[in-house]
Amino acid sequence: MTTTATTLKGQPLDRNVLDSILRRRMFYTPSFEIYGGVSGLYDYGPPGCALQANIIDIWRKHFILEEDMLEVDCSVLTPHDVLKTSGHVDKFADWMCKDPKNGEILRADHFVEDVLETRLRGDKEARGEKIEEKEEADAKKKKKKTKGQAAVKLEDDVVKEYESILAKIDNYNGEQLGDLIKKYDMRNAATGAQPSPPVAFNLMFQTSIGPSSNLPGYLRPETAQGQFLNFAKLLEFNTGGMPFASASVGKSYRNEISPRAGLLRVREFLMAEIEHFVDPEGNKKHHRFHEVETIELALLDRHTQLSGLTTVKHVPIGKAVSEGIVDNETLGYFLARIHLFLKKLGVDQTKIRFRQHMANEMAHYAADCWDAELLTSYGWVECVGCADRSAYDLSVHSQKTGAPLIVRERLDEPKIIREWEVDIEKKKFGPFFKKDGKTVEAAVLATTQEQREKFAKDLEANDNFVIDVPGVADGKVEVGQDLLKIEYRTRTENVREYTPNVIEPSFGIGRILYSLIEHNYWTRSSDGGDEARAVLSFPPSVAPTKVLIVPLSSNKDFAPFIRKLSQKLRTVGISSRIDDSSATIGKRYSRNDELGTPFGITIDFQTIKDGSVTLRERDSTRQVRASEDEIVAAVKSLVDHSKSWADIESELPIFEGQEVEIR
Amino acid sequence: MTTTATTLKGQPLDRNVLDSILRRRMFYTPSFEIYGGVSGLYDYGPPGCALQANIIDIWRKHFILEEDMLEVDCSVLTPHDVLKTSGHVDKFADWMCKDPKNGEILRADHFVEDVLETRLRGDKEARGEKIEEKEEADAKKKKKKTKGQAAVKLEDDVVKEYESILAKIDNYNGEQLGDLIKKYDMRNAATGAQPSPPVAFNLMFQTSIGPSSNLPGYLRPETAQGQFLNFAKLLEFNTGGMPFASASVGKSYRNEISPRAGLLRVREFLMAEIEHFVDPEGNKKHHRFHEVETIELALLDRHTQLSGLTTVKHVPIGKAVSEGIVDNETLGYFLARIHLFLKKLGVDQTKIRFRQHMANEMAHYAADCWDAELLTSYGWVECVGCADRSAYDLSVHSQKTGAPLIVRERLDEPKIIREWEVDIEKKKFGPFFKKDGKTVEAAVLATTQEQREKFAKDLEANDNFVIDVPGVADGKVEVGQDLLKIEYRTRTENVREYTPNVIEPSFGIGRILYSLIEHNYWTRSSDGGDEARAVLSFPPSVAPTKVLIVPLSSNKDFAPFIRKLSQKLRTVGISSRIDDSSATIGKRYSRNDELGTPFGITIDFQTIKDGSVTLRERDSTRQVRASEDEIVAAVKSLVDHSKSWADIESELPIFEGQEVEIR
Repeated sequence: MTTTATTLKGQPLDRNVLDSILRRRMFYTPSFEIYGGVSGLYDYGPPGCALQANIIDIWRKHFILEEDMLEVDCSVLTPHDVLKTSGHVDKFADWMCKDPKNGEILRADHFVEDVLETRLRGDKEARGEKIEEKEEADAKKKKKKTKGQAAVKLEDDVVKEYESILAKIDNYNGEQLGDLIKKYDMRNAATGAQPSPPVAFNLMFQTSIGPSSNLPGYLRPETAQGQFLNFAKLLEFNTGGMPFASASVGKSYRNEISPRAGLLRVREFLMAEIEHFVDPEGNKKHHRFHEVETIELALLDRHTQLSGLTTVKHVPIGKAVSEGIVDNETLGYFLARIHLFLKKLGVDQTKIRFRQHMANEMAHYAADCWDAELLTSYGWVECVGCADRSAYDLSVHSQKTGAPLIVRERLDEPKIIREWEVDIEKKKFGPFFKKDGKTVEAAVLATTQEQREKFAKDLEANDNFVIDVPGVADGKVEVGQDLLKIEYRTRTENVREYTPNVIEPSFGIGRILYSLIEHNYWTRSSDGGDEARAVLSFPPSVAPTKVLIVPLSSNKDFAPFIRKLSQKLRTVGISSRIDDSSATIGKRYSRNDELGTPFGITIDFQTIKDGSVTLRERDSTRQVRASEDEIVAAVKSLVDHSKSWADIESELPIFEGQEVEIR
Repeated sequence: MTTTATTLKGQPLDRNVLDSILRRRMFYTPSFEIYGGVSGLYDYGPPGCALQANIIDIWRKHFILEEDMLEVDCSVLTPHDVLKTSGHVDKFADWMCKDPKNGEILRADHFVEDVLETRLRGDKEARGEKIEEKEEADAKKKKKKTKGQAAVKLEDDVVKEYESILAKIDNYNGEQLGDLIKKYDMRNAATGAQPSPPVAFNLMFQTSIGPSSNLPGYLRPETAQGQFLNFAKLLEFNTGGMPFASASVGKSYRNEISPRAGLLRVREFLMAEIEHFVDPEGNKKHHRFHEVETIELALLDRHTQLSGLTTVKHVPIGKAVSEGIVDNETLGYFLARIHLFLKKLGVDQTKIRFRQHMANEMAHYAADCWDAELLTSYGWVECVGCADRSAYDLSVHSQKTGAPLIVRERLDEPKIIREWEVDIEKKKFGPFFKKDGKTVEAAVLATTQEQREKFAKDLEANDNFVIDVPGVADGKVEVGQDLLKIEYRTRTENVREYTPNVIEPSFGIGRILYSLIEHNYWTRSSDGGDEARAVLSFPPSVAPTKVLIVPLSSNKDFAPFIRKLSQKLRTVGISSRIDDSSATIGKRYSRNDELGTPFGITIDFQTIKDGSVTLRERDSTRQVRASEDEIVAAVKSLVDHSKSWADIESELPIFEGQEVEIR
């Protein structure tokens, strides 16, 4: 977790420099900044907006189109009852503690992490080791931590203890975090005080719907619930076919306790979520698993983490599933597909790992859960979650509302079932038990085959039986033979009913977007010896704008060529921008390297003579020259990744003319 | 306003039938329906979602790409201060009244409208005229209105009065609506009671941001404010160039009092908004106005409405601007561009009009405002607003925060300015007036040239002057000559500073989507004499899915052809779906006509022999047959609208073989 952040070319990554470029070029900017801003809220400017749109577009093609998923767009406003049933009202919380001196509110796990990491840094310093630059960059944090950051050497076994805690930090609950704070005497560096014991803080934004404020609601914390509630309609839309997946792209909201870390921890964020509904019988096989089984993933399983380590294993997903590291084929299939998606976007393959959730970290109903994490200057960041949510959500919503969120499958051959069945005599049963009627009935119907067999014998022998019903009378209830029948019967079933399980790949688009920027960022020194110039080497399909059109000067004769070229590019679906400012061509290209624009087309006096233009590639700064149509065709093939720059160089004449000026 | 709704082919439109198709085919569905639903909240299913995405895609190309607008994506959560400044906290409200008997909450203007329309219908019935079917369809409403809907003949002048009120219904404030309710003794049909006087109800959803609930906020009611707050950054991103436009697509929220009318009045909705920033000097000319000036629009101006009429005039936009019907070229340019956009989507050209806002209806700062309205079975529906917001928003945010939301323009030739200037002696002025210092200073600086000249003379004569400052002392303040200087000076300005005006085209995507469905809906009788079959004749670019692939039967030999065809279509960017269910080909095509799928490709045994397939067009049900590649190319040209179906019929052999079966 504690490697020094690097750029695409392995240079040390200075986050302050990168941040200032991203704000200056309006990739994103704090929302409401002229009003002082609100932490955890950001606006995307034109390049950020285009980058986001391209990521979503690739996501839609990679997942929805490729697998015929059913896209839905559901309401963000969600009534209380839905989120009460789903468990979010009771359990969607983080642990929060308060500094008793200055009232500062801290997120407990982040506080513990910060304190331990600070102490480990102090230890390294005392031992004379090189200190990583992570966190140092954040001037505000640095200031706050001055007190804690003294170079104090720790005992070797204390260092191991700290590292072990950090490796499983996501596995602690509030009480355990409180114990750690006391045990290691952790104090808020700003005040020297020990924070109060952690309490749960629900992360949902609350509001009320309608004019009479009578319907409490929340902003959804995930898009998933809307998809679950529509399950029956989606199944019908899919003409009953299983398995199938729904998908949704939209904003969700979490009232983070103390958001920092820029785009990585925000209160309003774009998610892309898939709910893949699958038959729980038959080990959740996936019919396309063979297509991905040889793909190797970097896995950090839960056993490794619980042993206090963070070592990854590189394993083909086929092997990971067959060895039981990953629970089932469908889950494994999606992990591999997520990997391919991130690769397509241009994520650095050395900075990705799949981390398995530990038991306490996982929702109680989940069968297995893996996060795709990307390494950034903030450490490893969870960008995609992929959980097996079992039948939990569909079951609870069905129980609560009575809506049948199930699949009815015609059986090829009827199933003969022999079992003990209970028939309640409704007319007598209810009046007999009065207010306890429903409770007793539920208890009777919940009995196992073994119990029923015993009760049937009791009835025969004694005309009654005694059943445990907690909360009714003294917990023992006597049921007489006039109130029900228990019989061993044979019946034939032609239809099987089941509640599907759900595999949920869930993508945090903002986190992916930010990590992608860090992974594609590097600097190159300029010929003139100026300061290093930033480059964002996005793949062409991801880049906000594909082409910069650069007339050599503001000469009016260039205007018709600019117009025609931009029109031609638009016709083949390629976005371009024109920079006809008075800056030198070199400066103009540099500015666009910062925006990640992969190609530049120069229009010069030669263009007026013979219609030829030059095409420059961002990463190599090399150029070719050809006719306008050839260049447009070349750009198209580069943007749809059907050709590489090397292909283009082998096909079109290299241009060296303005090399010095344009580099 | 009271025409009977019709389908694309002029048939009477039965909204109940259409609604049930739209829900069954999952264009949209009430959100949280298994929990009983929440009025004003809807989810889009797969076809609705695709339709919405296509509308947005066309919008982006038509506006953002075509005019190089700067797209931004801003936060929905908005702190109180921002919306206080913008005026929304105080004024973003509807008039609400309450039925004293059953507590029902009514939106006052809708209530007045409903009562008067019901009385006019009763009058028509009494006169033996044909009654329109509008509203009748809504069974619930019908029931409620039983009492009011008696066939009572009205005096001729009363009918005129009612019609005149309805024509300007949007022009009444709360008090006036209350007066109308009393004057015409309007009663809630459900109870026979007269509702309470209207009170203002703020339409914003409130929440609080952060763990300590100390930052009150709202869900934005429009995307505009985020764009205004980023003005300075956007201007810089645009390297200072004016005019320019920002644009945003995103959800906004309005806590409607009593939402009905399906997708037309919802609490959560997708908007697409443009803020075009323009220099207020020089009559807001637009450099591309000549491209649109001959386009004829159906205009309903405010004078016509105030005279109680709803007659539209068909006027070329050039003439409308030169005659002052539309305030300026930039506003006129966007009205024409909006018209072209709606036309491109497939809006019925006979069901569109541009209605000008009346004085009371318009925000007080607006210079002019027109709504593009589409005629549906609910009457005329505002789908796009196009307002000249003047410099209001930028000015108030700038005043509140001190951020300079202005343009600085270098003057070609310096401007010599001669005027009275005030220099405050800060060191003495503040201490002298103590707590009133800022107020008095503001009053002094707000003086006109005439006042300054007079004050300068007073100072010379009496060593002081007296200025009106409401709220300070008795409203009169004496200012001595030691506190300031007032002098007539000459200075040279090289830079002009101004606050841009804003022209704002604002699109309600859900309303456009619904109106578009009604405009493209019709029914055709089937050959077999079954019930009428629904068709949604969306233009190919708008249709949710472009192609249905239909194998003649479930024969396994078809599988490779299906796969290859769907792959080929995907490669050229065309979405397709496969229907290999066991229904007849005719049934399968019928189902897809309901979804608006424009083309169908049949794979049959001939395909296996020679690779040829048939292509069916949805509206004519006619077919051609050719090789797979020819058909894919034909579909591509049809979808990008470079060819018409007539072109294809003239190029490829007509196929009549399965006509009866496939119609």
